[in-house]
Amino acid sequence: MTFTSDTAVQAVEDHYTAAIRPGWDIRGNANGGYLMALGARAMAEASRPHPVSVTAHFLSPGKVGPISIHPQVVKAGRTFSTVRAGVIGPEKPLIELLGSFCEVESVDGSVMVDDEPPVLPEPEDCPRVIPHEGGFPPPMMGQVEMRMHPEDATLYEGRPSGQPMVRGWIRLCDDEPVDAFGLVMIADAFPPTIFNANLPVSWVPTLEMTTQVRGIPEPGWLRCKFSTRFITGGVLEEDGEIWDSSGRLVALSRQLALMPRG
Amino acid sequence: MTFTSDTAVQAVEDHYTAAIRPGWDIRGNANGGYLMALGARAMAEASRPHPVSVTAHFLSPGKVGPISIHPQVVKAGRTFSTVRAGVIGPEKPLIELLGSFCEVESVDGSVMVDDEPPVLPEPEDCPRVIPHEGGFPPPMMGQVEMRMHPEDATLYEGRPSGQPMVRGWIRLCDDEPVDAFGLVMIADAFPPTIFNANLPVSWVPTLEMTTQVRGIPEPGWLRCKFSTRFITGGVLEEDGEIWDSSGRLVALSRQLALMPRG
Repeated sequence: MTFTSDTAVQAVEDHYTAAIRPGWDIRGNANGGYLMALGARAMAEASRPHPVSVTAHFLSPGKVGPISIHPQVVKAGRTFSTVRAGVIGPEKPLIELLGSFCEVESVDGSVMVDDEPPVLPEPEDCPRVIPHEGGFPPPMMGQVEMRMHPEDATLYEGRPSGQPMVRGWIRLCDDEPVDAFGLVMIADAFPPTIFNANLPVSWVPTLEMTTQVRGIPEPGWLRCKFSTRFITGGVLEEDGEIWDSSGRLVALSRQLALMPRG
Repeated sequence: MTFTSDTAVQAVEDHYTAAIRPGWDIRGNANGGYLMALGARAMAEASRPHPVSVTAHFLSPGKVGPISIHPQVVKAGRTFSTVRAGVIGPEKPLIELLGSFCEVESVDGSVMVDDEPPVLPEPEDCPRVIPHEGGFPPPMMGQVEMRMHPEDATLYEGRPSGQPMVRGWIRLCDDEPVDAFGLVMIADAFPPTIFNANLPVSWVPTLEMTTQVRGIPEPGWLRCKFSTRFITGGVLEEDGEIWDSSGRLVALSRQLALMPRG
């Protein structure tokens, strides 16, 4: 199985069917970015192929099995299509999506980049994150090759770095090329930043996530950084950057998660 | 007129009616944050009072006159309600919204703040931005008292600072208290950051905007910063922070705008 086949969607009348495949879960619940990628593929099929910006609100955990996706084109403009969609499980809605889609040719090059890719040791000097049968790291780490910055990887040994940040390399297994939908998944693949804060840690439910796709990555390792500045008002943001092997920013993400209550 | 009365909504059968009031425009088109505030008020009426996160996709410019707002509760959970809404003008849809709402009591205090409010000269040492009859600064600057950091205010004299950033103080006229919906408007009130970049400048249409409300401001001036790091893929992000007079972060925003094509 590949990411592409695990996120395939089929048009059926006025909607799409798909399946949550095994192995993409965190303690039995499908990874949020994987669900977003499934939904975004159907939205792209229903409108234009390239997701510029996709926002998801998370409603219920997704379990392995069939789902349906119901895109509705809100506006088909000259360059962009605005699309909403519900991703529905056998029993209830899983996520609600809203996004903008365009032709791949509308994605321009770089005009201004006022930041640097995160500085990381070489991939071979970063520990690989491998699923543990106890569930942490979770099964979905078997779908990607993730190599975490050694300073941030201590969270897996129960020693948070003290900084709510995770940095590392990632690619799909067998170096499968990462498309725009792969970026949508990867933007939610790293462990929560606050696992590295000195706070009581538990499951961190995501309320909302927005991922901007800025380009299609060149082949090779992706360089990622996720960080949190503000844990206030009962919530925290997690800001992400994904850079490709040629040093280009290819995705920018922000998610809003609930502060775990000790 | 006040911001509160200018964003009032009335329940009518299964939807809400409201009006785009005069004076909230940029060259005849209603400010995007003002439209979001109108929509979010109806979404809150239809669900729970406090907007935690509101995402808008912009479809058509809003003109002065009647509008209708059609909220639909996607999920009413234990703590949060997920709501979508279309804001519809006399001729066509203006914006599509998706957001999370909760009770005001669910908004907690501060757990971690790993950043500082922007450093600004005192308000009386920052030039006030006043509408110009030529349309720049736009009429909506008459609805707020905005005082721009002198280093960033040169954009109004045709001398961009060279840094795509705008910082300044803001409050509603007559010091009207700013509620959560006022923050949603204010997050889009400052001029585009790239007016301070050395780039061909024209109207910068926003594709998507997400505003997180982290708290209700204390009375007084709000301290704001908006900045852009990446103009790539034909788009640019504008990241905003709003801090209140007590030094608390009260809102975090990100919008995705189209790169003006010279």
